[in-house]
Amino acid sequence: MTDGVPDVDLDAVRREGLLPTRGSEPAQHDGTGRVDISFSVDTGPDAPATQRNVRVPPGVTVFDAGSWNGIAIDSTCGGHGTCHKCKVRVEGGSPITRHDVRTFTQEQIADGWRLACLVQATRDLEVEVPPLTTRPKAATVGVGRQVILRPALQKRYVELAEPTLADQRTDLVRVTDAITDLELTADLPVLRRLATVLRQADFKVTAVIVDEALIDVEPGDTTDQRYAIAFDLGTTTVVATLLDLGTGTPVAVASMLNKQQPFGADVITRISATMMDPDTLDRLREAAGATLTELAEQVCREGGVDPAGVYEVAVAGNATMTALALGIDPEPLGVAPFIMSTALFPTLLATDLGLSLHPRARAALFPALGAYVGGDIVAGMLATGMDRDKRTRLFIDVGTNCEIVLSDGDTILSTAAPAGPAFEGGAIRCGMRAADGAIETVQLDDDVELGVIGDVEPRGLCGSGLVDAVSEMVRTGLLDSSGRFVPDHVAAEIAPALSPLLTRIGEERVFLLHRPTPDAPPEECVYLSQRDVRELQFAKAAISTGWSLLLEELGLEQRDVQQVLLAGSFGSYLSPAAAVRIGLVPKLPVLRIVAAGNVAGEGAKMALLSVRERAGAAALLEEVRYVELSDRPDFNDAFVEQLAF
Amino acid sequence: MTDGVPDVDLDAVRREGLLPTRGSEPAQHDGTGRVDISFSVDTGPDAPATQRNVRVPPGVTVFDAGSWNGIAIDSTCGGHGTCHKCKVRVEGGSPITRHDVRTFTQEQIADGWRLACLVQATRDLEVEVPPLTTRPKAATVGVGRQVILRPALQKRYVELAEPTLADQRTDLVRVTDAITDLELTADLPVLRRLATVLRQADFKVTAVIVDEALIDVEPGDTTDQRYAIAFDLGTTTVVATLLDLGTGTPVAVASMLNKQQPFGADVITRISATMMDPDTLDRLREAAGATLTELAEQVCREGGVDPAGVYEVAVAGNATMTALALGIDPEPLGVAPFIMSTALFPTLLATDLGLSLHPRARAALFPALGAYVGGDIVAGMLATGMDRDKRTRLFIDVGTNCEIVLSDGDTILSTAAPAGPAFEGGAIRCGMRAADGAIETVQLDDDVELGVIGDVEPRGLCGSGLVDAVSEMVRTGLLDSSGRFVPDHVAAEIAPALSPLLTRIGEERVFLLHRPTPDAPPEECVYLSQRDVRELQFAKAAISTGWSLLLEELGLEQRDVQQVLLAGSFGSYLSPAAAVRIGLVPKLPVLRIVAAGNVAGEGAKMALLSVRERAGAAALLEEVRYVELSDRPDFNDAFVEQLAF
Repeated sequence: MTDGVPDVDLDAVRREGLLPTRGSEPAQHDGTGRVDISFSVDTGPDAPATQRNVRVPPGVTVFDAGSWNGIAIDSTCGGHGTCHKCKVRVEGGSPITRHDVRTFTQEQIADGWRLACLVQATRDLEVEVPPLTTRPKAATVGVGRQVILRPALQKRYVELAEPTLADQRTDLVRVTDAITDLELTADLPVLRRLATVLRQADFKVTAVIVDEALIDVEPGDTTDQRYAIAFDLGTTTVVATLLDLGTGTPVAVASMLNKQQPFGADVITRISATMMDPDTLDRLREAAGATLTELAEQVCREGGVDPAGVYEVAVAGNATMTALALGIDPEPLGVAPFIMSTALFPTLLATDLGLSLHPRARAALFPALGAYVGGDIVAGMLATGMDRDKRTRLFIDVGTNCEIVLSDGDTILSTAAPAGPAFEGGAIRCGMRAADGAIETVQLDDDVELGVIGDVEPRGLCGSGLVDAVSEMVRTGLLDSSGRFVPDHVAAEIAPALSPLLTRIGEERVFLLHRPTPDAPPEECVYLSQRDVRELQFAKAAISTGWSLLLEELGLEQRDVQQVLLAGSFGSYLSPAAAVRIGLVPKLPVLRIVAAGNVAGEGAKMALLSVRERAGAAALLEEVRYVELSDRPDFNDAFVEQLAF
Repeated sequence: MTDGVPDVDLDAVRREGLLPTRGSEPAQHDGTGRVDISFSVDTGPDAPATQRNVRVPPGVTVFDAGSWNGIAIDSTCGGHGTCHKCKVRVEGGSPITRHDVRTFTQEQIADGWRLACLVQATRDLEVEVPPLTTRPKAATVGVGRQVILRPALQKRYVELAEPTLADQRTDLVRVTDAITDLELTADLPVLRRLATVLRQADFKVTAVIVDEALIDVEPGDTTDQRYAIAFDLGTTTVVATLLDLGTGTPVAVASMLNKQQPFGADVITRISATMMDPDTLDRLREAAGATLTELAEQVCREGGVDPAGVYEVAVAGNATMTALALGIDPEPLGVAPFIMSTALFPTLLATDLGLSLHPRARAALFPALGAYVGGDIVAGMLATGMDRDKRTRLFIDVGTNCEIVLSDGDTILSTAAPAGPAFEGGAIRCGMRAADGAIETVQLDDDVELGVIGDVEPRGLCGSGLVDAVSEMVRTGLLDSSGRFVPDHVAAEIAPALSPLLTRIGEERVFLLHRPTPDAPPEECVYLSQRDVRELQFAKAAISTGWSLLLEELGLEQRDVQQVLLAGSFGSYLSPAAAVRIGLVPKLPVLRIVAAGNVAGEGAKMALLSVRERAGAAALLEEVRYVELSDRPDFNDAFVEQLAF
């Protein structure tokens, strides 16, 4: 006689207030084992039922399992247990909730009919989905993810009866009584204006709702104006996408450098800055706010959208960027044992981020798995469906801090590897960002063939160019497997055309990639130095140690990996062949190495388009195990082993 | 197989977000019928169990039923279903919740053991309460109400383990893991400082909690500093009481005139002011804030308490005062059909009222039953236990707007009667407020004997003096039952000593109460005019029509009323005998007429001292039926009937 909801231990998650508390509590599980749900979708009288089998972690609701796999089930409340529309038949039944009792007859319950958002898949299930009464919209986002549109933001146009002495319901109850499928709450700013708006608009108004919060009541019918902005809040670059939530399509995109740049190029420098001067945290928060604000203004201008008509933003950023944007003291993130103030965030307003959009616009910030596997990675995992794919997949976001996620289809592990700045051109003699003049591809044959960004005179070497150059030198034998330039006589023998490019600057051996003039001295050339190779070597060793230890944890070999997803802009430029050759990724056929693009931004868009996907992101915190590398006794041995090319 | 919680229809209440959603949902009922709970309280091995029978509305939890009747049951979470301590044995059992399953063995459950905060009394129950493991404090508040101290504000001192690489829990989880009996949430301002405070205090901190919101984390042990302020926000006078929540005792009290006075003496004038000039609402809100702020500063100064150490305020005010203090448009309150923006309020901060106390201090505002039966009356009902007394009782708060509540021990009705300003000295020729020089008692024998406030020369007539004067003139026969001064010759016959005082000013007949000098002309005297009598007559008729229609609704006669509670300061001064004689209250022995004092302020104190009492106030909204008089066809007939003395 309990309510049928398994006793779960999501205390940590629930206490921090993010995870929906009704209808979608994943059951506790040990990180292994999935359940199979076989959906039989009735597509109408003229077509046979469609069969779909999906695998999900135990405890996921049938509604979410469908939603996450593009199987639409009727719903207006978005899986909150309030609209009573997501009817399905579960073979063999499932625990009965009081909502079922209100929705179905005794016979239907006995026959297995239940509300899908309240059925937790704790065993393999066969589920029958009746024909849809409404046609849900869907959008393709992320890495081929089909997302059914169910934004947290909803608008409802209502024409209310005017009050009389016989009907003295309060203004608020008059609105909420007209929207029975949601349990709405309103805060003070809405209450302040409510009476005025209702009467000026003759009680014909549009309720603006985010989740179950009534954030505004607008005169007349404004249901066609539903906008939100997805932010990818990077340490270096920030990207904003203005979304029309009615259609699921992007209206405008803009990007710019994070205005926190003057405080330091990477997160550690910025954290250090706050430790030197207590005012710096405020200034970093303001810089983040100014960046987001400028981008928001730009996409609104380009999209022809009034900023006051943007009701929600989603932000995917790493743990430090997120903390700084919110004004949360980041110091413990920067020093061992690397502690976050919180992994999950309470209900936030866009104004908490310094944004001036709709005054009650909400902000959804992606939760983090750890100090160095942040909300951007959680967003990336959402966009790449790391938890909803049966294949063994490796997700690598290469950067100063490199985040690595490994899933074998059952268990998901994550870790962070301190790769250092080599991939961003830092600590590299001729290193530079991926901007005009940067060498991004290198091919060594009889000559040096360079691909240069902007098709201009080469000025330096960006990360992908660095990887390419090293990879090509390994391939041609100019670098030995220990990462040392071969002696000149060996070079002359194995690559006579290239060996003249192997020279010295002072004591250090260098390989010239580009000479501005035929007789320019080495110092004026773009070159790769022995120390640069060492920097890259250490960076790649940190990363490959990361994924190799994760593989070891799951008892897997490199060849078991069916797909490697290279995330982020660096991942898009990197040559898969070069990455394999230097051992940055497992030794696999290059077709298995996929550039996944800006998956953090895609994840942020998904969170805006679907409240179920957003719940999925929160559920990832329960599902993904964070592996801390820095205190592992086997780390150093593994690292040394990975140093070789 | 439902979760045992009866299906209830508290939608309107729940949607507005105030009523606790767990553990204390009163069941729907039609306003009649109570259930009996028989408590057998084990007081220890050396004493026999104490028997107590209480009657409560169906659906109240056993925990609340005990709490409201001074029967203590162990609890640290205050009835939220999280601490699992409020163990009782229910004879014959009760639906089992998942919390029971976690708390008790199968045998105990079979034996009837349940968590009291989750047992709803839907039938008569016999309940066994085990000995207390902690000794709860209690305070006497209101009209003899014994309140068990369970403030919404709690402080918990915790010494936390410092983080390590093996224990990377977030700072927030570290705090919440140490407080397992509550499901805490923290908002952004707390998260911003959390890391700093924990580390500066070596992880030895005090969590400051209101309900389940972590509003601050303070270095060291500050558990002995727990203060709150109860406000009675009257249209005329505002009273503040600083409470020590550790002991339940008042530390300081202060009162002052509402700074909104310059905008009008009564609510209608102030509402009208906002309609003339849209800026006035802001100014009224600021005036309310300034009043509350000045009083808060005063009580903190007098009590030697740092305002930053005040974590919660409770405010009892009528619907208009509450709306104005929050900046909610009051216009629809002032015109038929008299509509509130909301009856219930979301979570509010003291800063929403303009107060500068602890920056995250919460504000609890009493909900209202209707536009003219406001939060002050709900607070008064709480303080007088209107819903927890088996007697037939009538509650009357006399004022410009007179609120009336009638309970027969089963059903509670309320209404509002527009009495006009007579009782506050308005519209009365020699009327004045109850201040120095005001005649407050009048006795007519061979001479006129006056009681004057401040024992000074009489300057005018306050409300109680007016009632007394009219009552005495009715008694001596100088006023006939229609409210007319008797002709001079009749006066000379029945009261020869007084008849010379019956004279005229212009055309109007007046009765002189006080002559400053023996030969002062009537205009320079304090007198009662024929029109003054008419004003009082209309006022008292409005009130007596109100309670007589409520009595009629319940099929009761005047003599059935076992107690009349006269609320507010006016009620304290009024002579019960005079009130009976002029028909302001039912014809009853004067001992049944009780001055209840400032019950709104007492109710506000109770809401701060006990979270269960606060829930009781919210539950009153479900239980009390509001009777609108202004559209009743029988109102005018009843009114005319009540005009006679």
